[in-house]
Amino acid sequence: MTSLKDLRTPALIVDLERVEANAARMQENARRMGARLRPHVKTHKTLEAARIQTRDGFQGITVSTLAEAEFFKAGGFDDITYAFPITAAKLPAVAEIQDGIDFHIVVDHPAQIRAVEHYAERHRMRFSVLLEIDCGYGRSGVPWHTSRPLRLARRLDDSRHTAFQGLITHAGQSYAAPNPPKITKIARKEQENLGKLLQRLQEVDIDCPTVSVGSTPTCSLFVEELEAANEIRPGNYIFYDRTQADLQSCRPEDCAVSVLSTVVSHYPGRNEMLIDAGALALSKDRGLVRDARQEIVYGVGLDHPHLRVESISQEHGIVGSKNNIDFHQFPIGTRLRIIPNHSCLTAAGFPEYHVFDTQGFKEVWKPVRGW
Amino acid sequence: MTSLKDLRTPALIVDLERVEANAARMQENARRMGARLRPHVKTHKTLEAARIQTRDGFQGITVSTLAEAEFFKAGGFDDITYAFPITAAKLPAVAEIQDGIDFHIVVDHPAQIRAVEHYAERHRMRFSVLLEIDCGYGRSGVPWHTSRPLRLARRLDDSRHTAFQGLITHAGQSYAAPNPPKITKIARKEQENLGKLLQRLQEVDIDCPTVSVGSTPTCSLFVEELEAANEIRPGNYIFYDRTQADLQSCRPEDCAVSVLSTVVSHYPGRNEMLIDAGALALSKDRGLVRDARQEIVYGVGLDHPHLRVESISQEHGIVGSKNNIDFHQFPIGTRLRIIPNHSCLTAAGFPEYHVFDTQGFKEVWKPVRGW
Repeated sequence: MTSLKDLRTPALIVDLERVEANAARMQENARRMGARLRPHVKTHKTLEAARIQTRDGFQGITVSTLAEAEFFKAGGFDDITYAFPITAAKLPAVAEIQDGIDFHIVVDHPAQIRAVEHYAERHRMRFSVLLEIDCGYGRSGVPWHTSRPLRLARRLDDSRHTAFQGLITHAGQSYAAPNPPKITKIARKEQENLGKLLQRLQEVDIDCPTVSVGSTPTCSLFVEELEAANEIRPGNYIFYDRTQADLQSCRPEDCAVSVLSTVVSHYPGRNEMLIDAGALALSKDRGLVRDARQEIVYGVGLDHPHLRVESISQEHGIVGSKNNIDFHQFPIGTRLRIIPNHSCLTAAGFPEYHVFDTQGFKEVWKPVRGW
Repeated sequence: MTSLKDLRTPALIVDLERVEANAARMQENARRMGARLRPHVKTHKTLEAARIQTRDGFQGITVSTLAEAEFFKAGGFDDITYAFPITAAKLPAVAEIQDGIDFHIVVDHPAQIRAVEHYAERHRMRFSVLLEIDCGYGRSGVPWHTSRPLRLARRLDDSRHTAFQGLITHAGQSYAAPNPPKITKIARKEQENLGKLLQRLQEVDIDCPTVSVGSTPTCSLFVEELEAANEIRPGNYIFYDRTQADLQSCRPEDCAVSVLSTVVSHYPGRNEMLIDAGALALSKDRGLVRDARQEIVYGVGLDHPHLRVESISQEHGIVGSKNNIDFHQFPIGTRLRIIPNHSCLTAAGFPEYHVFDTQGFKEVWKPVRGW
């Protein structure tokens, strides 16, 4: 019998009811936005969670690596967008993956298109391609307001080696927004910018079957009929985490993963405890940092939010509190569940997840790892 | 034929000659320190690297998790210190692991000793136990200057359930030292403090067969006959990394791992390139941060140190430079090797390592993962 009391720690605990509620809420959001939901699976990388995300009508998934693409194809997912700009060396793997399923790649530079055309020409094949647009995040993509999107879309639309699928963008700047109104403003601006770009494309007769947006903060907070996009691809929402709660993308009680740790030692002299969840179990993600003077915390107690992981090394987590810790409440050996700052990176440290529902332990999920 | 040109990226590249040179140098350091070398294997978690570390006379290894202990025992390593304070729930696994090999556990609190005695009593067995001492790091261990080490050592020495093995300490504060002289000062002070504690233990007839110290900075820079300790257990030195080079524990050319990435896109307007090594491949470790205003960099180019990974998300790495990047020098598709900030956390992201020597690709090492 697996229980929270006898699992070897640290362990990643998935709360199945929360996962299902988060999935259902985002499917409802997609309906209200008038958009297809093509969830990103990079947060969990498991077949089980992807099935829950797409339970209410499969309309494709989004992956971040070829290893994910191969794993989810083998798991029966037959419509996949690989949302990272492609390079020549990855095309042989893409050619193999896309055989028999709908598979879409992404470009944001003419050199990538040349590589795609070159490979397609040599191998007498065709790729389904999305053009990545930068609507203000400044990470990848061609800036929406320049002439480049038109030039690249024209080329993709004209080429016999590519089926131009449309536009894809990611409003990652939402993670830097100071409050929910600013996040919805970013989402609204994204629609506005995409709308303008779509109009310019229409004027030159370039059709965009897909216009894909999606970050968890915008898709959680800006739930209105979308003016320009017809697809959303949030990912983190399935688990959420402390950062999303701080952003108010979710309530703290929506966080669906926690790291089960053990209280290993007490240091009352410095009001600290040692737990066996360190940087490998929690990740070194610092969460939402809005101020250089802000104290950094690597996770907080699920049932005891005043307990904060204040420093970490590879396997050591040092838990402190602004209150005086009542050490009798947390005797050595106590199981302590920590809400991580960033569930994607935290989950990535675990070769398996332990899934619980209100009845108790349910099953183990095994994620794909590597690239 | 596996080569740096055709590996799927990101990939972790191990430079075998550097690994061997780092291993040989630390074995020579141990000799000059008059200490046994019991290397920590948590940095690489592979049988192959552990064999190189102990090639010149096996005197045990150090692990940070039970999963490592089980893996290295299965791989033929028969003297293992599990250098993390023990708790009751881990004792059944320890009992199984220690069967047939020398296995040492660590305690730093009376409640842990009670758990050990309780388990040993019930199962009629004995545990080999080290007492963790805090010589100034302030993470785990009992402070050296208090009366607690004597009390706990007395108890371990008297108990019929424990074989008291001696003291273990870790000068992790060396990572915060501003320069090599300060690091050697920390190492010297550690010997001094341990010496005083040993004397107090001797006065009450408590023998310490083992006195174990070791952080990579101190063992790399303070290479003198040790006054108090007779064992060192550095770990990171086998790979080193950007942090160690910044600390001057090693030369930049001693770094034995790099992340092979691909230049995916160019953004000349912001003097940036996209690579396919992000937070999962590099980790979010910020390296040596000495000043709150310091710019954070997540890794630098191995052959092009002016190229710096200035921001990362899960799979995206944004490379910038203080110089104007010559984009013709790094066409899209170029392979770029990145020296990570913290090799332990970077290696942890990879399910396998690709090992090269000057002849080219040699083999794949598979690390143990999880807990």
